[in-house]
Amino acid sequence: MIKIGVCQMQVGHNKAENLSRAEKMIQAAANQGAEMVILPEIFNSPYQMNLLPTYAEKEGEASTQFLARMARQCRVLLIGGTIPEKEGNHIYNSCFVYNRDGSKLARYRKMHLFDIDIPGQIYFQESDVLSPGNELTLIKTAHTTLAILICYDIRFPELARIAALKGAEILIVPAAFNTTTGPEHWELLMRARALDNQVFLIAAAPAYNPDSSYPCWGHSMLVDPWGQVLAGCGAEENLLISSIELDRIQQVRRQIPVMAQRRTKLYTQLMKNGPE
Amino acid sequence: MIKIGVCQMQVGHNKAENLSRAEKMIQAAANQGAEMVILPEIFNSPYQMNLLPTYAEKEGEASTQFLARMARQCRVLLIGGTIPEKEGNHIYNSCFVYNRDGSKLARYRKMHLFDIDIPGQIYFQESDVLSPGNELTLIKTAHTTLAILICYDIRFPELARIAALKGAEILIVPAAFNTTTGPEHWELLMRARALDNQVFLIAAAPAYNPDSSYPCWGHSMLVDPWGQVLAGCGAEENLLISSIELDRIQQVRRQIPVMAQRRTKLYTQLMKNGPE
Repeated sequence: MIKIGVCQMQVGHNKAENLSRAEKMIQAAANQGAEMVILPEIFNSPYQMNLLPTYAEKEGEASTQFLARMARQCRVLLIGGTIPEKEGNHIYNSCFVYNRDGSKLARYRKMHLFDIDIPGQIYFQESDVLSPGNELTLIKTAHTTLAILICYDIRFPELARIAALKGAEILIVPAAFNTTTGPEHWELLMRARALDNQVFLIAAAPAYNPDSSYPCWGHSMLVDPWGQVLAGCGAEENLLISSIELDRIQQVRRQIPVMAQRRTKLYTQLMKNGPE
Repeated sequence: MIKIGVCQMQVGHNKAENLSRAEKMIQAAANQGAEMVILPEIFNSPYQMNLLPTYAEKEGEASTQFLARMARQCRVLLIGGTIPEKEGNHIYNSCFVYNRDGSKLARYRKMHLFDIDIPGQIYFQESDVLSPGNELTLIKTAHTTLAILICYDIRFPELARIAALKGAEILIVPAAFNTTTGPEHWELLMRARALDNQVFLIAAAPAYNPDSSYPCWGHSMLVDPWGQVLAGCGAEENLLISSIELDRIQQVRRQIPVMAQRRTKLYTQLMKNGPE
């Protein structure tokens, strides 16, 4: 059994305040016995494309230092949501993960950038500012294997599928859907990826912030390999504490053995035939 | 706009009665202006593995003759749910599709057989009796392209994905979930496949029959490319009539352009790297 804390924190314009708010929530999660703590997407900065270059940091600067220190101080596996990460001329939407001794375990850079245009409701083009990552990140811990997907990545079933086939048992999804797409698609996508791949999925969102230009949907949740929501919350700031039982994965896979019944060679062959 | 009739019919042990019930519903759908009519999975026989060999027919025998005649008489594109189809030593779970002139348009054989074992709730092994198909079926009509998936096929995201990439705009899913998996997964899977691929999806189920050994979940539904249920019903016998507007596909694909943002080469590369 793994006890998990999901910090659905409110994120504002003041970076120091964001870090301090994250600090309190990570500590509270650790005090409640969480071994793994997860922050949301862009937890240290406002989620606003024109501001990200100003807030972006290199690895080793304030926010990653903060994450390493918190992991060590609280003795937790810390999945540091995401931060705008600068490297050379590029900015990435990156998740850094730290072990309970403060050592870095992994970094994942969002692979599918969020470019959408729903007239009169929401227009957002991450690719104006960000560069996409090109690597899958699998994190082996003592008990299990995790994979990170960031927000819009979840709309592409291929990525979750590849992660699960490579052995990921828990998909961790720092994400910030909005009040347009959130009520329509958030739970559906999270539950579908968990069910299709018969893995746990943990989605960590920022809370709704009335002062922000980006209206976050919140609704962080833990989903089990049966596609059932184990725990979840609304849009307001919330520390979600819940436990998962990894044995559930094998139980579900015995009952409905889709992961073993896939017809891999046939799919490849069907894709090759005919158009496209 | 295409007007569609989904026949959520009750299926019993008497084949002649099943055909006659289907006949009345197809006629009723045509009378209400449906251009496309869809029957459920195994609409002519009880869904019971030990009985399927007795009920199975070759193409050209009673049930396929019936379907061709109904399509012609009612002037509809008829998607004949599925029947147990005999060919040589094999039995398939097959969908036959007829044009409004009664000519055969396509046949699809279920590709993923339904083998599950949920202790104390449901045990079912199609593969004890049935053989799987190995071909994707795309049906080009004057206005659009359809693909057929049968029931358990829907649990494999690859198949719907391949169909959509090959140009299918409407996924037609004759299916018979049960009262164990139905309430848990039916709507989730149907909506997820529609949303992920930004296509319409129409699921046609038999009605719940208290006299049947297989407790059908029913809940036939039409889902739009936004993942929204356009129309649906409960478990009881029901003729669902609804219209779909194909333009909605391009509208959704402009708003959230995931179909164009897929990183195909990268997926192939990621699958090749490392384990599995």
